[in-house]
Amino acid sequence: MTISRTVFFVSDGTGITAEMLGRTLLSQFPGIAFGRFTLPFVDTPEKARKARAEIDRAAREGARPIVFSTLIEPAEKSVVASSDALFLDLFDRFISPLEAELGVESSHMLGLSHGIGNHGAYQERINAVNFTLAHDDGATTANFDQADVILIGVSRSGKTPTCLYLAMQYGVKAANYPLTPEDFGEPGLPKPLLPFRHKLFGLAIAPERLSQIRNQRRPDSGYASPENCRYETRRAEALYRSEGIRFVDTTTKSVEEIAITVLHEAGLSRPGYP
Amino acid sequence: MTISRTVFFVSDGTGITAEMLGRTLLSQFPGIAFGRFTLPFVDTPEKARKARAEIDRAAREGARPIVFSTLIEPAEKSVVASSDALFLDLFDRFISPLEAELGVESSHMLGLSHGIGNHGAYQERINAVNFTLAHDDGATTANFDQADVILIGVSRSGKTPTCLYLAMQYGVKAANYPLTPEDFGEPGLPKPLLPFRHKLFGLAIAPERLSQIRNQRRPDSGYASPENCRYETRRAEALYRSEGIRFVDTTTKSVEEIAITVLHEAGLSRPGYP
Repeated sequence: MTISRTVFFVSDGTGITAEMLGRTLLSQFPGIAFGRFTLPFVDTPEKARKARAEIDRAAREGARPIVFSTLIEPAEKSVVASSDALFLDLFDRFISPLEAELGVESSHMLGLSHGIGNHGAYQERINAVNFTLAHDDGATTANFDQADVILIGVSRSGKTPTCLYLAMQYGVKAANYPLTPEDFGEPGLPKPLLPFRHKLFGLAIAPERLSQIRNQRRPDSGYASPENCRYETRRAEALYRSEGIRFVDTTTKSVEEIAITVLHEAGLSRPGYP
Repeated sequence: MTISRTVFFVSDGTGITAEMLGRTLLSQFPGIAFGRFTLPFVDTPEKARKARAEIDRAAREGARPIVFSTLIEPAEKSVVASSDALFLDLFDRFISPLEAELGVESSHMLGLSHGIGNHGAYQERINAVNFTLAHDDGATTANFDQADVILIGVSRSGKTPTCLYLAMQYGVKAANYPLTPEDFGEPGLPKPLLPFRHKLFGLAIAPERLSQIRNQRRPDSGYASPENCRYETRRAEALYRSEGIRFVDTTTKSVEEIAITVLHEAGLSRPGYP
């Protein structure tokens, strides 16, 4: 029998922070099925009472719900905390030690995370997304000099989602350039990449996994065949090694893990980070 | 004089959870300048000792650093916790009450958040990103029947970044369709949208802000002129109202806030949510 529990993420903002820490904590209890509900923008006492009613309804229908809260205002918080649930306040536990350490009181201001916040940093993120879209899949190499990083790899090795994640979350101008069988015909780096050697970061992938991914796109094609995937991945890795280009194996990694590895190993600062 | 403090986000995985909660907490102390460093993938005692050395170096050069940790393994955690810093464990404070509430022990497994985790859900996110890219800016309306939501709005109202965020973070297949002056020449909804009325969500924006954004792209153009921006935004909002289409004003909202508003008000489930 699977145990199942209802979980609420309650916030006066988007609820993204509560979801993320809550999700991380719940992943440590793999035997339990969690029904998850996010209640964002709870920023008035009336919305707090609505949230409490929803939590109490879940309590009547099953086991005691679990509430992850990043509410800041005492008025809303006390309402939601009075629901029939385990109430975990993700803020209070850390705000007091931080106030003591820093010697100042916290501002108790709402909506500071995931809002526009620092306008310059936010605009950098949006500009980076536009840059990445304009330079996806080698669409143009004209502004590669403005790129913070240029991901290279064979088709379907994970370049596009990784670039978009770097741009969206960290304001990194990430371009990408696909390595194709034509590129492998010539020795050395493809010509358009020569001036940007120091910005290159390679993506590697196991040929079996690549063949699987490509088969979803073009079933039974030469493009997706195991032989071709073995050829392309072998040539790409040989290129990284002979040219001294850092690379990461994406086979078992999520987009987040690939992106953080690139950020970390390329020593990129995070311009869009408020 | 600005007080400045050094902050480390330390994790055995990507560090994204530690960064996010840490950033949210620090935003409550706007008077202090924080220097932020993320130390991801600290998953061996040797890496833990390197992390401690880095934190201790910062301690010697300035005020006591602050460490936000989501380390799980006791071996690595005890090393990092022994550095000369305020050590805030984002995990321990909540794992115990959750274990008591759920009546089971936590698994203490590494890398469960931001990894590939649930393969099906992860694949849905990647598929959603590909879907969104293929249907960006009305590129094709052929598979609108497969879309979870279709954002409509004038050029530069925020459709593309919002769609990408919905796809990347929540696995929502988000398409978008630009409302252009030609669309306003005909009464009612643009023809390609007629069969998908129930999936539409409108983006509104203040004409002054729109003109500002468009001027960055095409300075002093008719496209960016205040008159044209007033015309287009007025017609778009009139269309939403006359056709009964839900919409959100994006003028002062971040991509995250727009995306969560769409998810919440459109009552979308979050298919990619593990």
